[in-house]
Amino acid sequence: MSAAARDLPSGGPLAPTLDELRAAVDVAAGRRPADLRLTGARLLNVFTGEVEAVDVDVAGRLVAAVTPAGAGGAPDAADEIDLAGAHLAPGLIDGHLHVESSLVTPAAYARAVLPRGVVGGINDPHEIANVAGLEGVRWWLAFAGDLPFDLWTAAPSCVPSTALETAGAELGVGEIDELLAHPRVVGVAELMSFPDVVAGDFEQLAKVAVAEHVGKTTEGHAPGLGGRALQAYLAAGIGSDHESTSLEEGREKLAAGAFLMVREGSVTRDLDALLPLVTPRHADRIGFVTDDRLPHDLLAEGAVDVLVRRAIAAGVDPVYAVRCASWNTALHYRLPRRGAVAPGYFADLLVIDDLRAFRVARVLRHGRWVAEGGRLTEAAERALADAAAAAERRPEAAGLRSSVRLPDLGDGTLRMAAPEAGRRVRVLRPLPGQVVTEATTAVPKVVAGEVVADPERDLLKVACVHRHGRPAPGTGVGLGLVQGLGLRRGALASSVGHDHHNLMLVGADDDAMRRAALRVAELGGGFVVDDGERVVAELALPIAGLVTAAPLEEVVVDLDALDAAVRALGGSGSDAFMTLSFLGLAVIPALRVTDHGLVDVVAARLVPLAV
Amino acid sequence: MSAAARDLPSGGPLAPTLDELRAAVDVAAGRRPADLRLTGARLLNVFTGEVEAVDVDVAGRLVAAVTPAGAGGAPDAADEIDLAGAHLAPGLIDGHLHVESSLVTPAAYARAVLPRGVVGGINDPHEIANVAGLEGVRWWLAFAGDLPFDLWTAAPSCVPSTALETAGAELGVGEIDELLAHPRVVGVAELMSFPDVVAGDFEQLAKVAVAEHVGKTTEGHAPGLGGRALQAYLAAGIGSDHESTSLEEGREKLAAGAFLMVREGSVTRDLDALLPLVTPRHADRIGFVTDDRLPHDLLAEGAVDVLVRRAIAAGVDPVYAVRCASWNTALHYRLPRRGAVAPGYFADLLVIDDLRAFRVARVLRHGRWVAEGGRLTEAAERALADAAAAAERRPEAAGLRSSVRLPDLGDGTLRMAAPEAGRRVRVLRPLPGQVVTEATTAVPKVVAGEVVADPERDLLKVACVHRHGRPAPGTGVGLGLVQGLGLRRGALASSVGHDHHNLMLVGADDDAMRRAALRVAELGGGFVVDDGERVVAELALPIAGLVTAAPLEEVVVDLDALDAAVRALGGSGSDAFMTLSFLGLAVIPALRVTDHGLVDVVAARLVPLAV
Repeated sequence: MSAAARDLPSGGPLAPTLDELRAAVDVAAGRRPADLRLTGARLLNVFTGEVEAVDVDVAGRLVAAVTPAGAGGAPDAADEIDLAGAHLAPGLIDGHLHVESSLVTPAAYARAVLPRGVVGGINDPHEIANVAGLEGVRWWLAFAGDLPFDLWTAAPSCVPSTALETAGAELGVGEIDELLAHPRVVGVAELMSFPDVVAGDFEQLAKVAVAEHVGKTTEGHAPGLGGRALQAYLAAGIGSDHESTSLEEGREKLAAGAFLMVREGSVTRDLDALLPLVTPRHADRIGFVTDDRLPHDLLAEGAVDVLVRRAIAAGVDPVYAVRCASWNTALHYRLPRRGAVAPGYFADLLVIDDLRAFRVARVLRHGRWVAEGGRLTEAAERALADAAAAAERRPEAAGLRSSVRLPDLGDGTLRMAAPEAGRRVRVLRPLPGQVVTEATTAVPKVVAGEVVADPERDLLKVACVHRHGRPAPGTGVGLGLVQGLGLRRGALASSVGHDHHNLMLVGADDDAMRRAALRVAELGGGFVVDDGERVVAELALPIAGLVTAAPLEEVVVDLDALDAAVRALGGSGSDAFMTLSFLGLAVIPALRVTDHGLVDVVAARLVPLAV
Repeated sequence: MSAAARDLPSGGPLAPTLDELRAAVDVAAGRRPADLRLTGARLLNVFTGEVEAVDVDVAGRLVAAVTPAGAGGAPDAADEIDLAGAHLAPGLIDGHLHVESSLVTPAAYARAVLPRGVVGGINDPHEIANVAGLEGVRWWLAFAGDLPFDLWTAAPSCVPSTALETAGAELGVGEIDELLAHPRVVGVAELMSFPDVVAGDFEQLAKVAVAEHVGKTTEGHAPGLGGRALQAYLAAGIGSDHESTSLEEGREKLAAGAFLMVREGSVTRDLDALLPLVTPRHADRIGFVTDDRLPHDLLAEGAVDVLVRRAIAAGVDPVYAVRCASWNTALHYRLPRRGAVAPGYFADLLVIDDLRAFRVARVLRHGRWVAEGGRLTEAAERALADAAAAAERRPEAAGLRSSVRLPDLGDGTLRMAAPEAGRRVRVLRPLPGQVVTEATTAVPKVVAGEVVADPERDLLKVACVHRHGRPAPGTGVGLGLVQGLGLRRGALASSVGHDHHNLMLVGADDDAMRRAALRVAELGGGFVVDDGERVVAELALPIAGLVTAAPLEEVVVDLDALDAAVRALGGSGSDAFMTLSFLGLAVIPALRVTDHGLVDVVAARLVPLAV
């Protein structure tokens, strides 16, 4: 070859080098022994829809050749494994997820899902972006670079979510454009600001345009949108949607050209409703995603493998079910050499010993075994630990570990002045199992000219405390009343508060609220339960106040302790923390509390306590 | 919006501007009247596979909304057309073609195919690159930029085809890399050097790597390749193949991950053989292409629309047949906002008044009617004429019009010294309807110590004359004998000679050959017939010696005259020029003649006349 060619880029950091390509070609051609040969496999071929009896030769990180079983014609491999008729499938890719929802780092997330056959996913680090902006997203990206797991990233598009809150950072079109240059960034993440898009807002259209300019996608988020509004949203150039909850909604979006992501999260579970659309007739247009999965569900049920398993159980052709969590997603996002078991593709594949149950026996990732029998291999454990340690040493790490910076919570800051006697005040009422809240009213209990909690009527005080150390209106504390959490005493505090991730507080007395808040600050973030006298349970989330580096199993133990502590106070359990985290979500109706104060979401403005 | 956003790129030259996006969103949302509304259409929805009764709103160049027929909800459009139940389909895109094979410019090509519903194609300007290198490809690209037709380009990958010829230019990895930066260049064109790829040649692998580095594809060309050699070829990272001629070959390539292009050219017609693979089961993996279509066939039969029509006639689901020439191709090449009729897509669509016959009544391209009833609209005629005129004014045009530079053809240069008496000499024998030649031998007729043509035995002299004005070995003339053309007298000359495009000459006497050659040079390129006394028929191809700016109808008239002239001399007709153009193709067995001399293709070396 010419010197010029040798100096040319070799596919970028995510593509094979010329030497790797040559090795794969040599192995395929039979001139060089494979590093690994898998014989007697039944391959789920995502290109033909067939199951084929094959042998697979692996060269380094790549699949070199897929040949008819027993065809031979190449030298003995360095390592050969007879799969004895087990099925083989490409590694699974989750089309849309928020790792932060699992409360752990990408390393801990990968640790939990690799043994299930999930080798990558498209992560929207929307939460960490709201806390730590570009810095946070960059840390996530750099961190993920070392993982034996493909954590692709979509650039968070709506930071902050609204002007009625103070998030930890802002990401404008310029910052999004900057992120799009990173090879692991596949596009712009779900444009949740769908009313603005439908209204033709230039800022939103510019986000689509900058992605298109570099040949990347813009993902959608349009819950319940249909008719001309859906057409307007997609006309902007948005390529997907993962918010369909009914068959009709899914069908309309599919027909309108959206890549239809079928979601099975922890809270929102859409597979059953959308199942009739999951058919080979819809070819490349369907992808499987989890969006948000909570720690317990990840451990007990799984991640995007859940969709494959449940789709197969419901009668979907297994090859197509796998395709929806591999090739279709790789194609939609243009992931290079991923999503299939074929020559030239990265050797990410699953040995499946029971296809009906989709039981994954072994997982090969980039040519190395990362899991066997549901457990990580030692090499994979080491690689994950190394990646986590390297992440800790990065310069961004310190800032992320000191993200909870509270204002003074001394006398008066949690105080709500009473309105004139008998006047009703606004009350947030979360609906069980839903993210929307009702706005109701009540005549409050008043003590010494101050509105106080009244646990007898299940009326608690709720506060949103600015925790990012940025200029926030007034004292940085928004206050209100909430009904439905059931606490008889004590308080809960959380540094997870969608989407701004200010400190969310609820309680029966101010002292307990203050104690819980300060304990969260001491932990650098987390969930805390105070029983009215002292802190009785906690989960530290010291990274950006959102996640921990601990393994998922430990998180679940702490969550169980929190659950018991909340129940002892009269609440429903640890799901109270999820409810609490959504009480500040000022983009979903009806009444919310942010660090700016009480927000009437439908009117899109601040409102006073008194009606 | 912020000033920063307004300054950001708006999707590049091929994407809509922010203002266009806003207009489309406004029209979709019903805030602004559509520029055009098509009502009562039956849409072939490539995303669902269904035929749907819809209305379509167009805003500028874009489809703004596709809504259920009669749903209303938007202001009256500026223009409204009731399609009265006619079918609507996305404009067709040809997945792989060489415009040069039609002997006309992109403007004349577009003129011929737009009325048939072909709104774009992926062109490999391999021929013009062999004549004029980067300069030629750049002219093609700039020319095409003004056309009302999407002429996407793949960077020619094998220029020259072999070291046993002198082409007009070389394109190395560096030049390919340079071309890949152009937004109309979708990737690297068919890597015809498949033996080198299978051998692991770094130069070939580097071509794949530079494309991958910028997120673009590398296309394949692997006739007859199977087994481990096919695996090796694809392992390099090659994404497609269009050379399958049998069902088994097609099935193997499809299963191995190649995007399977089904071709219906003029010479090579593969649709019948591959038809069983053209099924919705193969989803996004099948594309329709024409590769090479000759003028008569283009006019009489059509272009890529031929495949859609014939597939439907053979029983393929019409929506899937259309998908193979629209969405599948757009998806494979990542063509932005193309290949479907959906909100946000460019408004490239076909009104079809007879779906079974796939009869295209009207063609809308980027929101404007370009053809009606099989004829171009006046506006489209004007746009094509303007593009052609602008191309003529470009600085590269002059060089392309003086591409035939012959060496001295005076006494002796066409002379072949006789071997010792009775010794046999090598003879090229083209096989009817095929590109391969046989290598045979004969005892030549000798006059005055010189091998001469012997029309009695159908033995003619053949010459390949270097015509690029570059340093070539010896006199720049390669000589030999050919059998099978049937000329009793006279000579044929052609500046089209694959792949180097040197001057190809065949004749019964040297004077006629010389006259024909000089006439081709005078024309600046073309096909010429000399009857032994004078030039009797010709087709001028003055652009790079390959194509003419004249319309296809005029080319066909000239070809008919050439046909008659060749027949009058005893030949089979104008297809003799195609045969002649392939006599120099030194990459396909068995015996060829280039400007270097006689080439034994299998041995890959020059051979003397005498055996």
